[in-house]
Amino acid sequence: MKVAFISIGDELLIGQTINTNAVWLGKEFSERGFVVEKVLTIKDKSAEIIKALDQVSKEVEVVIITGGLGPTKDDITKKVLTTYFNTTLELHTETLQRIEAFFESVGRPMLQVNIDQALLPVDATILKNEMGTAAGMLFERDNVITISLPGVPYEMKHLMTERVFPIIEKRFPVVSSYYETILTQGIGESFLADRMSDIEDELRAEGLELAYLPSPGMVRLRITGEKSAEGIDRVKFYVGQIEDRFPQYVFGRNEDELSAVVGQLLKQEGATVTTVESCTGGRIASEIVKIAGASEYFNGGFITYSNELKMRLVHVQEETLLKYGAVSQQTVEEMALGGRRVLESDYAIAVSGIAGPDGGSDEKPVGTVWISVAGPNEVLTKRFLFGNDRSRTIEKSVLTALNLLRCMISKINFEKSN
Amino acid sequence: MKVAFISIGDELLIGQTINTNAVWLGKEFSERGFVVEKVLTIKDKSAEIIKALDQVSKEVEVVIITGGLGPTKDDITKKVLTTYFNTTLELHTETLQRIEAFFESVGRPMLQVNIDQALLPVDATILKNEMGTAAGMLFERDNVITISLPGVPYEMKHLMTERVFPIIEKRFPVVSSYYETILTQGIGESFLADRMSDIEDELRAEGLELAYLPSPGMVRLRITGEKSAEGIDRVKFYVGQIEDRFPQYVFGRNEDELSAVVGQLLKQEGATVTTVESCTGGRIASEIVKIAGASEYFNGGFITYSNELKMRLVHVQEETLLKYGAVSQQTVEEMALGGRRVLESDYAIAVSGIAGPDGGSDEKPVGTVWISVAGPNEVLTKRFLFGNDRSRTIEKSVLTALNLLRCMISKINFEKSN
Repeated sequence: MKVAFISIGDELLIGQTINTNAVWLGKEFSERGFVVEKVLTIKDKSAEIIKALDQVSKEVEVVIITGGLGPTKDDITKKVLTTYFNTTLELHTETLQRIEAFFESVGRPMLQVNIDQALLPVDATILKNEMGTAAGMLFERDNVITISLPGVPYEMKHLMTERVFPIIEKRFPVVSSYYETILTQGIGESFLADRMSDIEDELRAEGLELAYLPSPGMVRLRITGEKSAEGIDRVKFYVGQIEDRFPQYVFGRNEDELSAVVGQLLKQEGATVTTVESCTGGRIASEIVKIAGASEYFNGGFITYSNELKMRLVHVQEETLLKYGAVSQQTVEEMALGGRRVLESDYAIAVSGIAGPDGGSDEKPVGTVWISVAGPNEVLTKRFLFGNDRSRTIEKSVLTALNLLRCMISKINFEKSN
Repeated sequence: MKVAFISIGDELLIGQTINTNAVWLGKEFSERGFVVEKVLTIKDKSAEIIKALDQVSKEVEVVIITGGLGPTKDDITKKVLTTYFNTTLELHTETLQRIEAFFESVGRPMLQVNIDQALLPVDATILKNEMGTAAGMLFERDNVITISLPGVPYEMKHLMTERVFPIIEKRFPVVSSYYETILTQGIGESFLADRMSDIEDELRAEGLELAYLPSPGMVRLRITGEKSAEGIDRVKFYVGQIEDRFPQYVFGRNEDELSAVVGQLLKQEGATVTTVESCTGGRIASEIVKIAGASEYFNGGFITYSNELKMRLVHVQEETLLKYGAVSQQTVEEMALGGRRVLESDYAIAVSGIAGPDGGSDEKPVGTVWISVAGPNEVLTKRFLFGNDRSRTIEKSVLTALNLLRCMISKINFEKSN
């Protein structure tokens, strides 16, 4: 079974908004055994919408259209679809009542534009939206199902989950491919490929597929096989092979988040962690707190951006700062040890670096970052070179620091990779 | 002039990777007067690449293909293009030397897969890549320029900026539309639309376009007109009208970031700020630090996730916590006042809330967030209800807190909107 997504909106084409809807839809449909055939991102114009519908209707069984159903005056999808599917708009009483109830529940007055949203095509199946005012619509013609949804991500997800997938799953029972993704931190794509070329050759010889998916500080490896008992076993076998070879780099699978993996390890140990951040400015702490239930192992931390606060809050010695500078092994170690002591934590992560664009020197170029993790039995301190881009340096520092902590808790030997 | 983007890669279709390349390309081409006609996201398969090329070649003057040029074995774009444009691969000596030099500079050994990247199509213009090992390629046929670039975002951007745009700008001098975007925080799309419907009607009557672009905690308003002296004036006139009407909500234009706007205001005042964060766990501080040069007005801050640290680090009274709870006006005010005093800052932002999914009650449901800003002359403390989603609640808290600070520094009266 094939599916295509049509994302409508100039804001997507001119790069003002990221198409996260296509990301979510891609994942959900793949998991249900659909082949995601293509994503068309097009203009908010009648002719373009019609052209896209004509095209994909020949290629797929299901078309999902997102965007263009909001209450404001620049949204036209509903009108175009009503014409395209030869039907007319009529007041949909249930939807009107729902919109009225919605506005009452949030204690806001209802506007005329919201009332107009209850005008819906007669020949469509109306998909009740409990998260907002724009209903979804399902049209059917020549064995192709076309579904129109609002572009607001949480409304779209609600409608897909509660209304659309129950229909889809009944019509198209799952048969298809199975994949798992291995998540690695701390090694580049080429090096990983080189160090596992034997495994790659073997799995390809067995008919599996392997894709390398790099992002700042991470490479994901996706292994795909057939969705059969045997196929799944084969995928899992190679996942295990790769995990065994790279314990320092592989931190999880599929949807795992590094901060959740670390949180789980801390919970198992009954241990706590604190953070003392300079150039990452709280990003590590916020990554830890992103995980619900983090209060079990995280009480809080410090952002010591200035030298003065490094001394005052976590007792870095003035002498150390004068002699070695803020971005040095000695300073970052004292930050970690001080933070651990002051907040009585089992582990402490400290980071000090030059995120740039200014502040670099020959000896300490922009992108130089020192990371230290202090634990009950040891202190691990490493220097990294993360390059010229400020936000990527911060991002890589966050992931690297969390991975260092993971290795320490799991007693995995940590060596800097090429 | 029209442009289309073809993004290649299963990882994009199945939702494993977000297509940030299309976002960046969309913005850059729009600014150069191109109409971004469409974005096709397709599979890493020969037939699909050819079909997409056949299709868009009829619709646009420039085609940008991203992805599929990496060193690993799942990348096929180069081979397909070589066949499609009837040419052959040959060793490109300059590229080989560049790859060798690149590996030497980072002190890593060169691999066979990297050497193979120097095999390039004879009839293409080779675009030198100084950030990585995959060269770009430019093909021309029937007045359509087709450019193939690596999918790694910073390599793609480097090649576009240094190699492709100089060629494009010479061939297609700019004529086109002009837009500005107004950035608002703290008011919903419908309410904004309602409160400026007179301005909207007026600007549409003058032939301008208006789009509402909502994201968590923000609504952007894009006004588009003709790129002529008169058109630009008209756009700017309405931008001014909207800014004047909503000083509390409008925090900037175009690419402005709220944290940079706040940073600029602090610099102008010669003032400093600190942060005391509970449920946002360092996200506000990291948003401040994201801006290069933040050390001028930010020395550091506290993450006081536990009650104990609220007392120990910023001197919230035990009595206050027992009587009112951690998520209360009294506690968050004491956090702000304590943080301001302890770190001797001019301003302090404090946040305490229930991000969820657990911890809510009838009186304080999940999504309840108290934000307090303490300044030299006043303390502003407000309660917000940000809904059920943990990450959206954190995101909205960050933006709202920064906007509260902006209003206080700018002496703008802050009232909670519907």
